[in-house]
Amino acid sequence: MSSDSTSPLTAPSPDSPVYQAARRARAAAAELAPLPRAAKDAALLAIADALQARTDEIVKANAEDVARARAAGTAESIVDRLTLTPERVLAIASDVRDVVALPDPVGEVVRGSTLPNGIDLRQVRVPLGVVGIIYEARPNVTVDAAALCLKSGNAVLLRGSSSAYRSNTALVEVVRDAVAGAGLPADAVQLVPGESRDSVRELMRARGLVDVLIPRGGASLIRTVVEESTVPVIETGTGNCHVYVDADADLGTAVEILVNSKAQRPSVCNAAETLLVHRDVAGSFLPEALAALARAGVTVHADERVLALAEGSPATVVPATEEDWETEYLSYDIAAAVVDSLDEAVAHIRRWSSGHTEAIVTGSQAAARRFTQLVDSTTVAVNASTRFTDGGQFGFGAEIGISTQKLHARGPMGLPELTSTKYIVTGDGHTR
Amino acid sequence: MSSDSTSPLTAPSPDSPVYQAARRARAAAAELAPLPRAAKDAALLAIADALQARTDEIVKANAEDVARARAAGTAESIVDRLTLTPERVLAIASDVRDVVALPDPVGEVVRGSTLPNGIDLRQVRVPLGVVGIIYEARPNVTVDAAALCLKSGNAVLLRGSSSAYRSNTALVEVVRDAVAGAGLPADAVQLVPGESRDSVRELMRARGLVDVLIPRGGASLIRTVVEESTVPVIETGTGNCHVYVDADADLGTAVEILVNSKAQRPSVCNAAETLLVHRDVAGSFLPEALAALARAGVTVHADERVLALAEGSPATVVPATEEDWETEYLSYDIAAAVVDSLDEAVAHIRRWSSGHTEAIVTGSQAAARRFTQLVDSTTVAVNASTRFTDGGQFGFGAEIGISTQKLHARGPMGLPELTSTKYIVTGDGHTR
Repeated sequence: MSSDSTSPLTAPSPDSPVYQAARRARAAAAELAPLPRAAKDAALLAIADALQARTDEIVKANAEDVARARAAGTAESIVDRLTLTPERVLAIASDVRDVVALPDPVGEVVRGSTLPNGIDLRQVRVPLGVVGIIYEARPNVTVDAAALCLKSGNAVLLRGSSSAYRSNTALVEVVRDAVAGAGLPADAVQLVPGESRDSVRELMRARGLVDVLIPRGGASLIRTVVEESTVPVIETGTGNCHVYVDADADLGTAVEILVNSKAQRPSVCNAAETLLVHRDVAGSFLPEALAALARAGVTVHADERVLALAEGSPATVVPATEEDWETEYLSYDIAAAVVDSLDEAVAHIRRWSSGHTEAIVTGSQAAARRFTQLVDSTTVAVNASTRFTDGGQFGFGAEIGISTQKLHARGPMGLPELTSTKYIVTGDGHTR
Repeated sequence: MSSDSTSPLTAPSPDSPVYQAARRARAAAAELAPLPRAAKDAALLAIADALQARTDEIVKANAEDVARARAAGTAESIVDRLTLTPERVLAIASDVRDVVALPDPVGEVVRGSTLPNGIDLRQVRVPLGVVGIIYEARPNVTVDAAALCLKSGNAVLLRGSSSAYRSNTALVEVVRDAVAGAGLPADAVQLVPGESRDSVRELMRARGLVDVLIPRGGASLIRTVVEESTVPVIETGTGNCHVYVDADADLGTAVEILVNSKAQRPSVCNAAETLLVHRDVAGSFLPEALAALARAGVTVHADERVLALAEGSPATVVPATEEDWETEYLSYDIAAAVVDSLDEAVAHIRRWSSGHTEAIVTGSQAAARRFTQLVDSTTVAVNASTRFTDGGQFGFGAEIGISTQKLHARGPMGLPELTSTKYIVTGDGHTR
């Protein structure tokens, strides 16, 4: 086999601005890698201070993006995510200070031993190198991602939504000035040049220059990056999460976990999208559950058995189609089905889940054990809401995203997930 | 962005035999995942016994491959790698028994804590799922890979060289019979159907069915898989390894490490391909080093400064071109250059190395520290041969390959590198 023939994947040309930015990032990454924590923390504090000092210019640049978005008839929820107020800029600066407080993963000895021949072997954490982030219209991600990459010794190439281009340009200018002022290479943090989709395509083809791409955003963005990138990708975020109410569940607890999983914040990836109920408790659980979902404003997309038990319920209940089982609503909607057994619930989850988070509510130790063994998702929750799958909740301090793939990182990714390792072999002239 | 438009990557059709095999592997993987170590070890022992009991049919099938290879004029070194004798089958069976002795990575608690809200959080190792191995004409890889995947709870799809098709078919039949006899799903181990390159292409496109592809073999095979696969790939093996002899090196030690790194087994990825010598010791080191390389039968591809010092040497010394710096010879050849400083050696390595293994020979603690900090390869050796980068040498018991990428696994990959993790969250009705 030869790769010279029909490969549709071409590297960006050396003249491309994206390629040049990636080469500058690579050079910056080489400078960052050996830096001690103190140097990186000083730069992060300088970033936080600069964000506060230059809030006015950031908010002004953002106002232009917001005005354009409104003029283009953008949905108000998206405009809200795009908007930066002085308070929000202060919150972003505060998040950067939180990253300062986190331990530096670089240099951590993951394992180490003296081999039988006397060689000392150590496996130590090192930065990944150059990290590319492709994301949607959330300007806070610009600074969050830059701070996490800097702390872990990585250079970052940021490719946000073109609708946030002015905001991101202003934020990155502030960050780069602060980084340079702290004596670190400004090119550690760069916006990917160009607003067109070609620049995204070039970033996805910059294998050898970019070590990993992390797409953050909707399912179609992530799928595109996963399918078209030759740079290794960490897939994030799609969450078709399930709550399974077992025959042995405490039904009051089950209602609380269900409503919290679905409705506490429906727009996020760890919100529940499907309810599965064991047939033995369907008759006693569903009336109470449907009433609680109705109070939370949730529409239920129900299979036939749930429909039959929903008669007279105050809830809005509509018949489910097969599409409902695979839908990540991200809204006040939930699919619901009755299952004959725990194993049928597991089979449903295996077939339809995106592998993010599944919860079981049960009082049975055997059921909890079987469910956690058989369900293969980033997170399996026993008697707890699906909403706990989160770097902050897990105590990681911050997260760059939630990986739904199995390679490299799975689940919430903190600073250690932004590192690789290398082995250091120390001998006294050892040969084989 | 949408993935519906121009993506050149198409999934295999549901009717394809490769796709069907991958679905069977997926079902088998679900059965393997929760199995305790005892069940997997019993199957491995059954495999080892069956390989011994059925040696004759394996050797007979192999003889057909060998005859065809000879008839096709295949190089004798490749025919030798292809050949199975009763002794070699016994050795393969013995390797399987070694895997039995290794600890089971599945279920290992990687980290765990009780969160401030009382939730118990555990991160545990789980199998990757379905592992695809694409490799060249080494039938022993067929059984090694099957044993390592089985032990780590993974189903495996094996795609060896078509020149070893009969050998691999016989080996896999023996393995599958043993696996089934031990009560495990035979489809845990499958040969990818078809001898054509189309079957490799389909395997590379089976994203969602195959969790990871590990190509083992020459650089062009690996590059093809890396560039064309939509399934996540772990890049293995290319080793353009360097030995740097520092100004403070003990020159006798340096000669030993150099010759061992280059000539102890030149055909493997951790053999040295380039020698870099600090100018301060070039005059005293090179005559001795060139004489030792000459005794080992090594040809030196030298830069101008090495050429000047090689006058009157018994070594075969030819002028190096730029191509030599990036060549993985895998033969009795080495490139050699004089550098002005440790930092110039690091810069040379950064530019030309494949990131596998680089060694420094030095008596200076400061030089050792700087070299290990600045060189970003899977393994950095101080006063030790490059040849130690190996799962067996590192004490991992066995290896599925040596990753030269930064994501998921870097360096020799043992059983833990064939796993992912999942989080288990246990509460008492916890909600946010």
